[in-house]
Amino acid sequence: MNTFGRNFRCTTFGESHGPALGVVIDGCPPGVRLSPETIQPMLDRRRPGRGPLASSRAEADTVEILSGLFEGRSTGAPIALIVRNRDARSEDYDALRTVFRPGHADYTWQAKYGIRDHRGGGRSSGRETVARVAAGAVALACLARDGIRITGSIREIHGRVIPREQEREIAEAAERGDSVGGIVEVVAEDCPAGLGDPVFGKLDAAIGGAMLSIGAVKGVEIGEGFAAARLFGSENNDPMTPRGFASNHAGGILGGISTGAPIVVRIAVKPTPSIRKEQQTVDLDGRPAAIAIAGRHDPCIVPRIVPVAEAMLALVILDALLEQEKYLRYAGGGRE
Amino acid sequence: MNTFGRNFRCTTFGESHGPALGVVIDGCPPGVRLSPETIQPMLDRRRPGRGPLASSRAEADTVEILSGLFEGRSTGAPIALIVRNRDARSEDYDALRTVFRPGHADYTWQAKYGIRDHRGGGRSSGRETVARVAAGAVALACLARDGIRITGSIREIHGRVIPREQEREIAEAAERGDSVGGIVEVVAEDCPAGLGDPVFGKLDAAIGGAMLSIGAVKGVEIGEGFAAARLFGSENNDPMTPRGFASNHAGGILGGISTGAPIVVRIAVKPTPSIRKEQQTVDLDGRPAAIAIAGRHDPCIVPRIVPVAEAMLALVILDALLEQEKYLRYAGGGRE
Amino acid sequence: MNTFGRNFRCTTFGESHGPALGVVIDGCPPGVRLSPETIQPMLDRRRPGRGPLASSRAEADTVEILSGLFEGRSTGAPIALIVRNRDARSEDYDALRTVFRPGHADYTWQAKYGIRDHRGGGRSSGRETVARVAAGAVALACLARDGIRITGSIREIHGRVIPREQEREIAEAAERGDSVGGIVEVVAEDCPAGLGDPVFGKLDAAIGGAMLSIGAVKGVEIGEGFAAARLFGSENNDPMTPRGFASNHAGGILGGISTGAPIVVRIAVKPTPSIRKEQQTVDLDGRPAAIAIAGRHDPCIVPRIVPVAEAMLALVILDALLEQEKYLRYAGGGRE
Amino acid sequence: MNTFGRNFRCTTFGESHGPALGVVIDGCPPGVRLSPETIQPMLDRRRPGRGPLASSRAEADTVEILSGLFEGRSTGAPIALIVRNRDARSEDYDALRTVFRPGHADYTWQAKYGIRDHRGGGRSSGRETVARVAAGAVALACLARDGIRITGSIREIHGRVIPREQEREIAEAAERGDSVGGIVEVVAEDCPAGLGDPVFGKLDAAIGGAMLSIGAVKGVEIGEGFAAARLFGSENNDPMTPRGFASNHAGGILGGISTGAPIVVRIAVKPTPSIRKEQQTVDLDGRPAAIAIAGRHDPCIVPRIVPVAEAMLALVILDALLEQEKYLRYAGGGRE
Repeated sequence: MNTFGRNFRCTTFGESHGPALGVVIDGCPPGVRLSPETIQPMLDRRRPGRGPLASSRAEADTVEILSGLFEGRSTGAPIALIVRNRDARSEDYDALRTVFRPGHADYTWQAKYGIRDHRGGGRSSGRETVARVAAGAVALACLARDGIRITGSIREIHGRVIPREQEREIAEAAERGDSVGGIVEVVAEDCPAGLGDPVFGKLDAAIGGAMLSIGAVKGVEIGEGFAAARLFGSENNDPMTPRGFASNHAGGILGGISTGAPIVVRIAVKPTPSIRKEQQTVDLDGRPAAIAIAGRHDPCIVPRIVPVAEAMLALVILDALLEQEKYLRYAGGGRE
Repeated sequence: MNTFGRNFRCTTFGESHGPALGVVIDGCPPGVRLSPETIQPMLDRRRPGRGPLASSRAEADTVEILSGLFEGRSTGAPIALIVRNRDARSEDYDALRTVFRPGHADYTWQAKYGIRDHRGGGRSSGRETVARVAAGAVALACLARDGIRITGSIREIHGRVIPREQEREIAEAAERGDSVGGIVEVVAEDCPAGLGDPVFGKLDAAIGGAMLSIGAVKGVEIGEGFAAARLFGSENNDPMTPRGFASNHAGGILGGISTGAPIVVRIAVKPTPSIRKEQQTVDLDGRPAAIAIAGRHDPCIVPRIVPVAEAMLALVILDALLEQEKYLRYAGGGRE
Repeated sequence: MNTFGRNFRCTTFGESHGPALGVVIDGCPPGVRLSPETIQPMLDRRRPGRGPLASSRAEADTVEILSGLFEGRSTGAPIALIVRNRDARSEDYDALRTVFRPGHADYTWQAKYGIRDHRGGGRSSGRETVARVAAGAVALACLARDGIRITGSIREIHGRVIPREQEREIAEAAERGDSVGGIVEVVAEDCPAGLGDPVFGKLDAAIGGAMLSIGAVKGVEIGEGFAAARLFGSENNDPMTPRGFASNHAGGILGGISTGAPIVVRIAVKPTPSIRKEQQTVDLDGRPAAIAIAGRHDPCIVPRIVPVAEAMLALVILDALLEQEKYLRYAGGGRE
Repeated sequence: MNTFGRNFRCTTFGESHGPALGVVIDGCPPGVRLSPETIQPMLDRRRPGRGPLASSRAEADTVEILSGLFEGRSTGAPIALIVRNRDARSEDYDALRTVFRPGHADYTWQAKYGIRDHRGGGRSSGRETVARVAAGAVALACLARDGIRITGSIREIHGRVIPREQEREIAEAAERGDSVGGIVEVVAEDCPAGLGDPVFGKLDAAIGGAMLSIGAVKGVEIGEGFAAARLFGSENNDPMTPRGFASNHAGGILGGISTGAPIVVRIAVKPTPSIRKEQQTVDLDGRPAAIAIAGRHDPCIVPRIVPVAEAMLALVILDALLEQEKYLRYAGGGRE
């Protein structure tokens, strides 16, 4: 299932070492101003950093728009975006053709499909998120017309909350041939109340599904999240006042529907599974093997997950916004 | 969106104080032995306890099967299940017609639809889970044919892990007119490798969406979950051996596809929003109001969430299993 | 797949001789006045006639509403409707347990599912349309708020266009233990321009799928339909004038989108496959058998198809109308 | 809605005069041998003929595969195919920017979206079918592995069944600046019994939706189709024998499920709406206008519809085949 969304439907494709990655967006409202410049800056944020600690794969990630625009505006027809792969060094991966990397999708993909593009993880590569980010940039442009903003930030890296300590953690891990994870927070501001579609299309359910569809994400929480499990009801409930909610423990969602308060989401990112340290594994025939992963890998992908998480939240909220349009005329409710 | 699943599709309906709740299951494999006895025990587990601390709403929750069976077996036709509401004391809720309860869906439902069944929360009531549990019981019967078992348990209540301390927490909260939440863990054992549908139908994404669609759930994590964000890659990766994975930090899912190891999911349940303590709120016209919620409410719904979480995990896994069937003949992969 | 529609989603269930038939409507706009009286008259039109030529199964087909209403209006929550089976004489069908009726779904259902409720055709019975008609009645109530009307009529029975000749055809066929088919036309008036969702959700594509999902329908055409294949372009094109289209060969749809002119659909209904005349067939073991079908069967179901076709057209148009709502704010197009 | 299919999901994109057309296929079984050579011959069949009567737009329609293959075989990941537009003479269409062509989607697209790519009809151009045919070629390759074949043919052009008379009709119409339509038949042979998903995903319903989603198609019928409306039940029923059905009036489908007999579909194609003859129309402001359409247009598109109809039937049948896989293990039914 490579399509996300019911109204703003994004179908992504592409492998790490294939000719191109891309997305077809079906259901984009007509009349939205779009161009490569709408998309490129967000793709650039997703690219590997330039520092000594980052992956050195040098992809320009230039987006090309194949359809869906007329004189610089969306027409309601599907918008196809592609990004060519340029710097794919497939030979780096020859050793991995028959060996499963621990913590990666190698074994499970093989178990599922019986065939596997081992080069850079193929479709299971983090590079797949190029297409998500491109789609997210279009969604953000749509949301901006309604004044909705989405911002992500790093909350923790390997348990550290202070940036310089985070950098040190990454550097130390890299030096040891190891890797670290962290926590990313994404917030959507100025969303109208009324978004979300009970009972299975609840806004938090959609967000949860979206975030956990990002590789390396192992947990998601809304508002207080896991901490809510340790509060009293009287602490966790948000009192209401004529000026709005007096607090936002709920993280902007009640009963699966947005309250109008900021929507607050946090995700847990596991440490990069590709590490130089030797690990124990098996090969295609189930025989024991040792593996030490060379190649160009980030010792911490948390910073690069930030725009991906923003993109996914944008996709969810725009989808809910379009869903909500259907009922506005009838309900007299929602956004005024 | 009241339908869950792509292959084993469950459409639920019903309000807390309406005539009935129910579910239509579309896509149940044919030939499965089913009867009310398949479903009733799990519904009984979901019912309020009998202790002094539990909600005293006395519903028998007797399931009736309206379609889809022939001589005690499923036929491939949709299976409709209904449970009549009997003990709905709607008059308890008259005071809530024009006032929004903090922590509930009252305000957001009104904002979305412009109309709202205020009696017991209407469709946003926890009573909605009756239909999920009924569907889950059918899914579990299907899964049992493949030897897959699903078990839920309480991990924490208000931060406590020892049962007698948990009971004390609940009792104390109840006494003060307050409420507490907790953490539930659900585990699926003996699932084949290969379940899950990258990149947006990943097994963990589907689980995340399913769990966060349960009212009161504010977070979900797989395997190490949020703790993974504080591990090194070398700690978090699960080494592989000829006998399988040497550990299960991944919680049974890699790259969104099941590994064959137990699938381990934890969810954060917020404290019941209905509390006797007075709270500050507003009415339909936005005027300030104070509210102290009478009626029959559990001071802690964590125990009753356990079968609901089991049900949702069963729905996700069965759905993935049916999806996987499509490719088995081609892939030669997955389950042998 | 027992769900129809993307926005106004109807999930039907039930067998000819099971406890009940019904439908869950998910996505009904809130605020619509509904009651059993909204639905019952259309169900009554679908019931067997009372004449000597009609099926004598005596079902009251009384609808019960289980959910989704509050004080007589829809709330946005799913609306469950059920109709109990009362007069199911299952013993009439004992002889058919092991023999396939020609022209029926007996053989194909067995081939697909490996199990089959043979009583009255089970789920493949024409009685299944009870649920469609109930859903259609709700859709018509929604459409009426926008002034959209849908009317079906008999165009042909066994090639005859004059009512008294049609009746004679039916009578003669019945006398000989045979059956006849015919053609039904359904027209939707006062639909706004702009309905339909290119390229695969075109309005005519949706109508075609809807109509051919009715048992016994073997063809569908829009506007001129098959006759258009014999016209010149200059004859078939509808000239446009400042007052609208000068003709309606297109049947109200161009490029898969409604033009604002009446939407005109015709369907071909095959003769009832259940006939008293002896037919050649096989049994479950593939052995030759002769069959002469007793029981209560209409020699012509064309009149009873009329409300079913109206219902399906209503479902399609309401679904397209809700889809279109999503874009109105953006497009400034469609309905004013 | 630019996605077709539930299991073999094809999302198409592209306009007549944009950079490219294409399709993303999601859900292709893994392990299928595919290359540009699998697809190009069918694309070539769809291209305009070279005769004096055909459109002279000279597109090579060369397909490029962007993803989803590894060493010449499908991997289960989405397959993206694109075809670049080369010979788009947009200036031919400048006169049509503000005038609606009768019989085209110009007016309805404008009404729906409020914006429109007028160049060659934009997304509503027949050129859109390039993507369908590319996807259909992949589907046919999958079906071939199960021995299923699909063949289309011209049955009528402007009422004529003899090829040389058909050619004369086209030539005469072209000479007069007019156009003609016709009837195409498509047959699928050696399909297993059991395909189709009652009650709304019936095989004939899916075929009807697929065929009417092709531009210019105004009617669809299965087996006897409209002629069945004039037969007696005793004539139209297909007797069964130990060697199979004795006739095939049903066109290979009973109760919405394939019987194993050939699946026979006919579609009515309207005359090309683009004609040189002057026609009456209106402009964007609703003022009367006269139009005589220059540019490169086929006086009869029936021959070019043949591969498109084959493609759509292939997509429907493969989709049903994958759906059916889900239940084979349970049912013991369907294909052996």
